Amino acid sequence: MSHSPDLAKVWKAQVITLLPDAFPGILGQSLTGRALKDGLWQLETIDLRPFGDGKHRNVDDTPAGGGAGMVLRADVMAAAIDHTRQRITQTAPLIYLSPRGKPITQAMAQSLAQGPGCTLICGRFEGLDQRVIDHYQIAEVSLGDFVLSGGDIAAQALIDASVRLLPGVLGNEDSTQEESFSNGLLEHPQYTRPAEWRGLPIPDVLMSGHHGEIAKWRAEQSQTLTQVRRPDLWEAWNRSRNKA
Amino acid sequence: MSHSPDLAKVWKAQVITLLPDAFPGILGQSLTGRALKDGLWQLETIDLRPFGDGKHRNVDDTPAGGGAGMVLRADVMAAAIDHTRQRITQTAPLIYLSPRGKPITQAMAQSLAQGPGCTLICGRFEGLDQRVIDHYQIAEVSLGDFVLSGGDIAAQALIDASVRLLPGVLGNEDSTQEESFSNGLLEHPQYTRPAEWRGLPIPDVLMSGHHGEIAKWRAEQSQTLTQVRRPDLWEAWNRSRNKA
Repeated sequence: MSHSPDLAKVWKAQVITLLPDAFPGILGQSLTGRALKDGLWQLETIDLRPFGDGKHRNVDDTPAGGGAGMVLRADVMAAAIDHTRQRITQTAPLIYLSPRGKPITQAMAQSLAQGPGCTLICGRFEGLDQRVIDHYQIAEVSLGDFVLSGGDIAAQALIDASVRLLPGVLGNEDSTQEESFSNGLLEHPQYTRPAEWRGLPIPDVLMSGHHGEIAKWRAEQSQTLTQVRRPDLWEAWNRSRNKA
Repeated sequence: MSHSPDLAKVWKAQVITLLPDAFPGILGQSLTGRALKDGLWQLETIDLRPFGDGKHRNVDDTPAGGGAGMVLRADVMAAAIDHTRQRITQTAPLIYLSPRGKPITQAMAQSLAQGPGCTLICGRFEGLDQRVIDHYQIAEVSLGDFVLSGGDIAAQALIDASVRLLPGVLGNEDSTQEESFSNGLLEHPQYTRPAEWRGLPIPDVLMSGHHGEIAKWRAEQSQTLTQVRRPDLWEAWNRSRNKA
């Protein structure tokens, strides 16, 4: 039986951007690219420029109250949003990628992957007029505590993290269950052949064939690594374990 | 006087990847793209595949001890690293993009931008043999607490965040001083024309022309937003303020 997904039900990412040529970009390659070609998800790129004002299709203006840079105009972004949201299930979240937003987590990607898709707004310059964010109650989502020249790379990260969790995208469903964050901890170290490299052997336990010992070693490594590198995650993991 | 940068001194990003076609990708556009064409930074993409083993140029193998997915081989990655590091200043950090790493921060981007550049390793699959990480003392850096299908998008984010801080890349140097995280806080809301949109006015204070009041309002907004959305940043900001 061939796999022919129901288009209306296929997970869909809409991206409103000033850099439409940047999409699908890297998302058109490898895992996400194959899934896109196979119809496991859809991508719609919306160029913000044609919604701009006047002959020059201006999309931005100077900040009210002064200051450096340019701000994306409320009326222009609203026109793009109204146009775009007609073609997606209304429960799909409307998200603005911004360093002021809630940091992307694995739980957020899982939640997005379980829904119908999302509409992503990529900022540029000094950001977006606050009135659009307020009026549409746009969720602000951040890639992390650093500033990018635009939201496009952040949008690609969020799409990649979500799409790889869609059914059928990863060859082996087990892969997403052992990896970092799926259990709240960082992943244990991995090794593969050759058995010895530059005098460094693969740890004995991994070569023992003893599944119980291997699982125990990996769990310990995972816990120690998290404790040392990410005390914040370690604390959260212990709290949730004590509650259970 | 025309700007002709000394090539040996130009900031350089090297990227070791299985998706060489993904570079420069989005980094070839907009701000970072113009700066690349103007010679303000250099990009060298190194395809991992030719360093692979045998007729099929295998780069990975199954995890020692069992489990899903594939692990990038130590010998293959070491050959790529040795080849690549000959062509960059040895003080440029060697970084592996991995969810187990230290999260990217604005301070990290600032520190990278002040150095000679970096060599970035993009993982795929279940990660990289731990012995390579140990042997080369590779710094592990993470885009955030979520899993991507590879390190390539994370590498682009780190390069973008660093390159925009290089001298001459942003038209207006002021822009990087007021933005999120430069002072440890999230950025205040921004507004621009039209003065009224869908019944929503720009806040009066921003239209007052009173620079002192505007600066005060923005600082308050920035503090309140940080306190509400990011108690972790708020706490850190208060600690550093009390110390000063």
